Amino acid sequence: MLSAAQEYSRKNQPRFLAELKDLLRIPSISTLPEHAGDVRRAAEFLVRELQRIGMEHVRLIETAGHPLVYADWLHADGKPTCLCYGHYDVQPPDPLDEWLSPPFEPTERNGNLYARGAVDDKGQMYIHIKALECLMQTYCGKLPINVRLLIEGEEEVGGEGIAEYLRAHPETLTADFALVSDTEMFAPGLPTLCVGLRGMIYTELEVRGAKTDLHSGLYGGAAPNPFQALCWILAQLKNANGHVQIPGFYDDLQAPSAAELAAWKTLPFDEQKFLTEEIGAAALVGEANYSVLERLWARPTLEIHGMPGGFTGAGAKTVIPAKALAKVSMRLAPEMQPQSTFARYKQFVESLCPAGVTVEVRLIHSGDAIVIGTDNPYVAAATEALRAVFDRETVFIRSGGSIPIVGDFERHLKIPTVMMGFGLPDDNLHAPNEKFHIANFYNGIETMIEFFERMGK
Amino acid sequence: MLSAAQEYSRKNQPRFLAELKDLLRIPSISTLPEHAGDVRRAAEFLVRELQRIGMEHVRLIETAGHPLVYADWLHADGKPTCLCYGHYDVQPPDPLDEWLSPPFEPTERNGNLYARGAVDDKGQMYIHIKALECLMQTYCGKLPINVRLLIEGEEEVGGEGIAEYLRAHPETLTADFALVSDTEMFAPGLPTLCVGLRGMIYTELEVRGAKTDLHSGLYGGAAPNPFQALCWILAQLKNANGHVQIPGFYDDLQAPSAAELAAWKTLPFDEQKFLTEEIGAAALVGEANYSVLERLWARPTLEIHGMPGGFTGAGAKTVIPAKALAKVSMRLAPEMQPQSTFARYKQFVESLCPAGVTVEVRLIHSGDAIVIGTDNPYVAAATEALRAVFDRETVFIRSGGSIPIVGDFERHLKIPTVMMGFGLPDDNLHAPNEKFHIANFYNGIETMIEFFERMGK
Repeated sequence: MLSAAQEYSRKNQPRFLAELKDLLRIPSISTLPEHAGDVRRAAEFLVRELQRIGMEHVRLIETAGHPLVYADWLHADGKPTCLCYGHYDVQPPDPLDEWLSPPFEPTERNGNLYARGAVDDKGQMYIHIKALECLMQTYCGKLPINVRLLIEGEEEVGGEGIAEYLRAHPETLTADFALVSDTEMFAPGLPTLCVGLRGMIYTELEVRGAKTDLHSGLYGGAAPNPFQALCWILAQLKNANGHVQIPGFYDDLQAPSAAELAAWKTLPFDEQKFLTEEIGAAALVGEANYSVLERLWARPTLEIHGMPGGFTGAGAKTVIPAKALAKVSMRLAPEMQPQSTFARYKQFVESLCPAGVTVEVRLIHSGDAIVIGTDNPYVAAATEALRAVFDRETVFIRSGGSIPIVGDFERHLKIPTVMMGFGLPDDNLHAPNEKFHIANFYNGIETMIEFFERMGK
Repeated sequence: MLSAAQEYSRKNQPRFLAELKDLLRIPSISTLPEHAGDVRRAAEFLVRELQRIGMEHVRLIETAGHPLVYADWLHADGKPTCLCYGHYDVQPPDPLDEWLSPPFEPTERNGNLYARGAVDDKGQMYIHIKALECLMQTYCGKLPINVRLLIEGEEEVGGEGIAEYLRAHPETLTADFALVSDTEMFAPGLPTLCVGLRGMIYTELEVRGAKTDLHSGLYGGAAPNPFQALCWILAQLKNANGHVQIPGFYDDLQAPSAAELAAWKTLPFDEQKFLTEEIGAAALVGEANYSVLERLWARPTLEIHGMPGGFTGAGAKTVIPAKALAKVSMRLAPEMQPQSTFARYKQFVESLCPAGVTVEVRLIHSGDAIVIGTDNPYVAAATEALRAVFDRETVFIRSGGSIPIVGDFERHLKIPTVMMGFGLPDDNLHAPNEKFHIANFYNGIETMIEFFERMGK
């Protein structure tokens, strides 16, 4: 049976979707300096929205980068306090020519809403806000529990601002648990809580050869080629079996428990379907002696994201570039430390640098891997709320992605996090044609209402 | 003593330079489709100029790509006929931020003229036209020899159009020898004829993995990474000693004669200066068992020019790109054939392709290596003309660059080519801050007048 707040949600679904579209139209791409104004516009959109629904102390918190959005409502005496986290920034949309509809013009197709940020994380973050609106409207301007909202604009670029704020002002964020909706359901209709995340370090390698670009005819054979050097280096970082070759890379890795590994084996995972429908490549790759889920969730990886520099236009240009770059990140398994991993990587890369060129290894950002305990009343209530709405038992999974703030909540606020996400495996996060299944947006709001109401009992 | 034509040249130097600047302002970048109109504008500039100075049959010859410019004057009965070749297209100017003055706003600094195309080849090609103008003006509208001019707009993209025209209409280009000014002097003030060129094949490698870009957190460790695959492939094409690993790559190579190698040893080449002043890298690289000049002029090389695809913006994007490209060229030593070399390369690359990805190997353009004989009256007259103007003995060198048309002149017209160039080693061909030493522009015109007058005696 639906609660009054859930009834209110159902009646207002078209408006909620229209509002989300307005938010998605703002290209709040945090990594691109030319979009800094758009990032702030998205933050201001949320401020107006939180004021409108009745939250208190609504404000922007300035950081060295993009602002945080803060709001609270703390009048439910004796009830727990939830810290709702989300992010309003998005990944760049390129490659643009692979989008079927413009990334910042939200478009409905086949029950999905297509737009950059639809699921990561504007749509999921908006679930929290709409659940709070439904409760405010049906609880006479009150909420069943205490709530703080902290929404950042730098998640896609490492989240320095929020981490810094947490370190400096933990007392302004006291709460009993955190709530993050930035993960996915293991399968359509299968309620899912995420209890583990990989960490990451994002780096740049810059190789420099000659002082200027050179004609490859006049100098080829004697002048160093930075791209060749970079390829030699990158080829040696990972072997053909997907095993990272950096000395000591796996030293601190903590493998999942036997019970967790056993539970993963019971998940409805079809490796062939994963290959053909989600990835669409000739074959899966990686460490053959680990299952696919273990490779994705509990093993580190090293990936090359792009190699800027040199000639990238159409046709031919016969140049030996003066420099070459590579954007390289590593996902870290639990207990692998970003700083020591970066130090090992840097030393290894420098040891591989061939004659004639120099290499600079830069750390762009990093975050810890984390595993969350499940024996607390917040996870229990979340599990029940999911069962009530989806009518199925909840599964516990990990994600191969990284949400550095979850580790910071544990470290600085000493609170656990409930990671209740409503994305789907084929939602194209960080890729062209990102989408959010619209039914999951609505079900997410109802689940969140259920969760808040149960926590307030 | 200066001839009347040379006197005319001296008096008109400021105007000649101003005209060259007008030509350099046209961004005739043949490889970029958006500049096709500019390429044609440059051709039309030359048509007007050739008509103005008194050449006959001046016209554009259309090709599948950019047009050829043709003109002739054939009334010097009993005198030899010279086929003057040049090109009016230029390389792209990027990286733009390394130019000290805009690439298409010619700027004088320190006795040099800085602009894209200043020396390669607009400035040098314009030497021919200005020499002809001086002769026309001082020989009562005649020339001391017969002249055809054929100027192309696709040299920087492989020269398909001119090669096709030569194959189809060799009878319209009958001549005794060809003249090309698209090479350099071995050192400032040292008159130089170039007698050998490397050939080349320019290729693209395209590696494809997943059907779309993927989130590196959610898929990293199981999804194939095309950049990783490309690095593995590229790393195996050349070893750390600069030796190309493609099976059979060196099979057809013809080494220079002992006499030619001995002559190269007498050239004023300072390896340390070459490293520090021209290249500016930490060290020279390449096959240590060959001299630097032999590596540049008579040994093949393989170079990576850029690796488009993936994320190349500022900051961080955590994507496993669906595809990765590499622009790779090889310079070929004499007797290495472009077609068989490409076939060997393609087969080797395909054999290196790792699991999970596919690779496509594309040939963009190619050209033969060539060695020119020196025992003909044209080279003899060129040598004397250079001595008369520069007052030093001429040296014979090769170039590591490629001018495919020279092989076509030999093959289809059965004529030798005189490669008399006035570039300098530090002219930054194909690189930012390309320049032409202005004194060499003027001396080039006087030398060319001397050469034509000697050939007409």
